[in-house]
Amino acid sequence: MLLGRVAGTVVSSRKEPLIEGWKLLLVRQLDADNHDAGGYVVAADAVGAGVGEVVLYATGSSARQTETTRDRPCDAVIMAIVDTWEIGGRDVYRK
Amino acid sequence: MLLGRVAGTVVSSRKEPLIEGWKLLLVRQLDADNHDAGGYVVAADAVGAGVGEVVLYATGSSARQTETTRDRPCDAVIMAIVDTWEIGGRDVYRK
Amino acid sequence: MLLGRVAGTVVSSRKEPLIEGWKLLLVRQLDADNHDAGGYVVAADAVGAGVGEVVLYATGSSARQTETTRDRPCDAVIMAIVDTWEIGGRDVYRK
Amino acid sequence: MLLGRVAGTVVSSRKEPLIEGWKLLLVRQLDADNHDAGGYVVAADAVGAGVGEVVLYATGSSARQTETTRDRPCDAVIMAIVDTWEIGGRDVYRK
Amino acid sequence: MLLGRVAGTVVSSRKEPLIEGWKLLLVRQLDADNHDAGGYVVAADAVGAGVGEVVLYATGSSARQTETTRDRPCDAVIMAIVDTWEIGGRDVYRK
Repeated sequence: MLLGRVAGTVVSSRKEPLIEGWKLLLVRQLDADNHDAGGYVVAADAVGAGVGEVVLYATGSSARQTETTRDRPCDAVIMAIVDTWEIGGRDVYRK
Repeated sequence: MLLGRVAGTVVSSRKEPLIEGWKLLLVRQLDADNHDAGGYVVAADAVGAGVGEVVLYATGSSARQTETTRDRPCDAVIMAIVDTWEIGGRDVYRK
Repeated sequence: MLLGRVAGTVVSSRKEPLIEGWKLLLVRQLDADNHDAGGYVVAADAVGAGVGEVVLYATGSSARQTETTRDRPCDAVIMAIVDTWEIGGRDVYRK
Repeated sequence: MLLGRVAGTVVSSRKEPLIEGWKLLLVRQLDADNHDAGGYVVAADAVGAGVGEVVLYATGSSARQTETTRDRPCDAVIMAIVDTWEIGGRDVYRK
Repeated sequence: MLLGRVAGTVVSSRKEPLIEGWKLLLVRQLDADNHDAGGYVVAADAVGAGVGEVVLYATGSSARQTETTRDRPCDAVIMAIVDTWEIGGRDVYRK
């Protein structure tokens, strides 16, 4: 899994029927030190994340292992909202 | 999923029988700010996208989770045509 | 899928029994403008491609969705020989 | 699989129910010579690894092939704690 | 698949029970011209490869399609020892 910050939303009216109803969030990747890593992903949301929140997301076939995404064309899913992460006993991020 | 712009088409007469009938689109990857990200993918099209349109595509095994691509040798599929995406309350792209 | 040019062959006598009989082709990746992209892959061949030909290949689990490669340890397969590809109405490549 | 060093932990209270109870570890990637490779991954822990330990982790669908992670949205799992690795007869790392 | 050279071994006593008995080899990636490509992978060995040998390895779910690795947390497997590879009629490598 990787850490990211929800930056925005993507809206589509013409889409694969299997993804109807999904909230599609644009997530900017964070590096281990809570800086922008330069990449992004558009992810389905399995936990009710909002813009600005730091999240954990899974990619690939693992992104289909939630109730929201099972057997659907999804390769990235937000599966946790992060409260804190720490490195070497120091908080890198606290919600 | 990633954002991309349909740039062109790929035509093949000698191919795996399982992909007969597919429209193969060359999609240039976009970064989160709607600039060319430098990469591309050739994707099957599950939604009737046309050249110039901004789309959302899935890769890997998730690309086989549409009616068009199920159980076929496809690792990239266009599964939505993007209407808008916004970051921080600002429209980055509007169709 | 990605575009590549068949550059050579790989020969192995000691190998996983499940891949006996495969033709293993070394494929140099092409970018969207038909230039060498700097990478390569060794792919199984599902369509009878020859050295010098421009091909389309799939990677990951999707590479196992052909008769040649099903349930075998294959993560890259050539599934089409490209006749043409065009971008913005202009032929980038014609066989 | 890749080598990494456990650098810290990630805590989340709002998450996909299927990942309840997991210890989520932040692992910094190591290169083959035991230097920081610059990347990281957040991995589930199948072997009881602690901060500072050098581990081996698997990614993608293979990360779901442990008792802890089976059928869950996990794309990275620590599946071994490394005692030693050597290159060319020389110990690169010894616990 | 990619080409690599077996550079060393990784030893672990505390590990996922499903990988007991595996020989874990550290493989340095080779580029198409038989130069060090800068990356590496730790792979399970399905063919009895030794240090110094040039091998072909598969990654991702395809790495689980051998008798050694089936249904186990393995994302990289050596599935062939390379005798020769040639590009444009010229031997790049000969065992």
